[in-house]
Amino acid sequence: MSGIGALGEFGLIKALTAGLPGASGLLCGPGDDCAIVQMGNTRVLLSCDAMIEEVHFRRDWMTPEAIGRKAAAVALSDIAAMGGAARCLLITLGCPANTETEYLSRLYAGVSDLTRQFDVPVAGGDTVRTLNGIMLDIAVVGEMAPDVEPRYRSGAKPGDIIAVSGYPGSAALGMTALERGDAEQTALIEAHTRPRPRLKEGAWLARQTGVHAMIDVSDGLAQDLGHIAERSGVRVVIEKDKLPVSQEMRSYAPTTGRAPEEYALSGGEDYELAFTIAPDAEADVCAHFTAAFDLPLTCIGTVQEGEPAVLLNGHPITQRGFDHFAAGK
Amino acid sequence: MSGIGALGEFGLIKALTAGLPGASGLLCGPGDDCAIVQMGNTRVLLSCDAMIEEVHFRRDWMTPEAIGRKAAAVALSDIAAMGGAARCLLITLGCPANTETEYLSRLYAGVSDLTRQFDVPVAGGDTVRTLNGIMLDIAVVGEMAPDVEPRYRSGAKPGDIIAVSGYPGSAALGMTALERGDAEQTALIEAHTRPRPRLKEGAWLARQTGVHAMIDVSDGLAQDLGHIAERSGVRVVIEKDKLPVSQEMRSYAPTTGRAPEEYALSGGEDYELAFTIAPDAEADVCAHFTAAFDLPLTCIGTVQEGEPAVLLNGHPITQRGFDHFAAGK
Repeated sequence: MSGIGALGEFGLIKALTAGLPGASGLLCGPGDDCAIVQMGNTRVLLSCDAMIEEVHFRRDWMTPEAIGRKAAAVALSDIAAMGGAARCLLITLGCPANTETEYLSRLYAGVSDLTRQFDVPVAGGDTVRTLNGIMLDIAVVGEMAPDVEPRYRSGAKPGDIIAVSGYPGSAALGMTALERGDAEQTALIEAHTRPRPRLKEGAWLARQTGVHAMIDVSDGLAQDLGHIAERSGVRVVIEKDKLPVSQEMRSYAPTTGRAPEEYALSGGEDYELAFTIAPDAEADVCAHFTAAFDLPLTCIGTVQEGEPAVLLNGHPITQRGFDHFAAGK
Repeated sequence: MSGIGALGEFGLIKALTAGLPGASGLLCGPGDDCAIVQMGNTRVLLSCDAMIEEVHFRRDWMTPEAIGRKAAAVALSDIAAMGGAARCLLITLGCPANTETEYLSRLYAGVSDLTRQFDVPVAGGDTVRTLNGIMLDIAVVGEMAPDVEPRYRSGAKPGDIIAVSGYPGSAALGMTALERGDAEQTALIEAHTRPRPRLKEGAWLARQTGVHAMIDVSDGLAQDLGHIAERSGVRVVIEKDKLPVSQEMRSYAPTTGRAPEEYALSGGEDYELAFTIAPDAEADVCAHFTAAFDLPLTCIGTVQEGEPAVLLNGHPITQRGFDHFAAGK
């Protein structure tokens, strides 16, 4: 027997789901951003994301409102990554019996704030006692519009261009700024504490026929593109010079002894969208995306035939993104 | 500010959900066994239930298979209580990084065992690291058959008869047997460790026009009937002599210094169904239920006009059922 730390989160998921009953009735089972189940005439999207105190957040780094807000954003991001429309969510809250009611009310206010913004009502949930620390698990329910096909991790085709929204790596640098108490790094800290689910952007992208595979960047660009590579059976080739790096990343990353591109590749928790586009659709999608959304979009590489892998300037990337069970985390 | 222990689980839920955005688009929001959302031509049922190590289960009392099995059963029971059909579930698993993979595989095997039995595939989930102990949160998705109306807690009418399946209180006595090491109390221990979601029974009951309100007995009969009383604006009157008491309850309860009827009223975690029936439908429903299912059904009292309350032989019940946040738990 071995501890799951050695196996890693994705090895663990693979080991655990291997024994589950066949996914009869599911259009998409475990292994993508959302599960999809056909219910009547509707394709229902389902996903859940848990945040654990001292693992995913610290009370002294984030207000309870920000923690609630982020938990909802993280969960809704999975609906965005399929190109779906969010419909409602369920909140499971765990906390010790001595938790202040006001603290929990502020946490819920953060959830409300985000759900109001995206018009996604809280349909229900559960509250349980824990022995230590707060746990927030949010299950989200969405649907695919009847005339839109979901975008799977498995949809990438050789020749596709790889694009990514925003500035992945900002959230990881923001966490470093919080750890160090560098409060003046407001843009980076906000990337960590107030990620936005790219719901409008994802739904729009799923309406573009040239957009093939899509994923949200939760564990780091290299690792998440690795999921696309593996599920699509393709090689993902990134050009370092094309990686989006904001002014804030460029000036702050060197103070940590690492290049901003390292953060762009391996920093997690940005919840931006990464996707692949047919080459003949690239110009059109990029131009319209930029016109429609106040969000940078950057083409960073190409999809090629070959053994599933992520290459940077021709070399396999060995850096890992955020793995919840990896040693030393 | 005050700790939530004083408020109790239901006070807390009321305080927290008060600030949530209006439940637009929801057929049923927080406050019943499941939420119901209309998606296309389907009424989708949603619920989630979390189990925390050392709060809801102990590893030395239950095998990992039993823990996984029970977590799934508890969550599916909420679908049963609405009269719905279960469609799929999501598993959020939290555990420390040093947890043995084999232990988790056995936990998942328990979930699989139950989901196979009820033909409810695992659609997805999340795995996260915790600092201490295992956390299992299961979100369930179901649907109402097009020709069946969901049974709400609010549906009870004065004059209704109150019925309950099985032997509530057995699970609480089973927990006592586990605490004491009374391994020979197999029937009671099994009630605690292997509850069954009453999915077939609930779906059948929802097809009987005389069945009005329904709930699953998770927190103790008195407390759960209290929810029906409050939501329906009625008085629930129970007759002590009619409470179902099994042979095992009758012989084991006295060894704890309490009457078996006390367990029947306030013991939690049985996941039986309690419901109210129009008086003219009682005989028919009871006869057909008993013929269709290998499960006792007992009429224990009546619904009356009056301030919402639960009375036993005419006296208000002061005992509380299981409250996750109550002092001393």
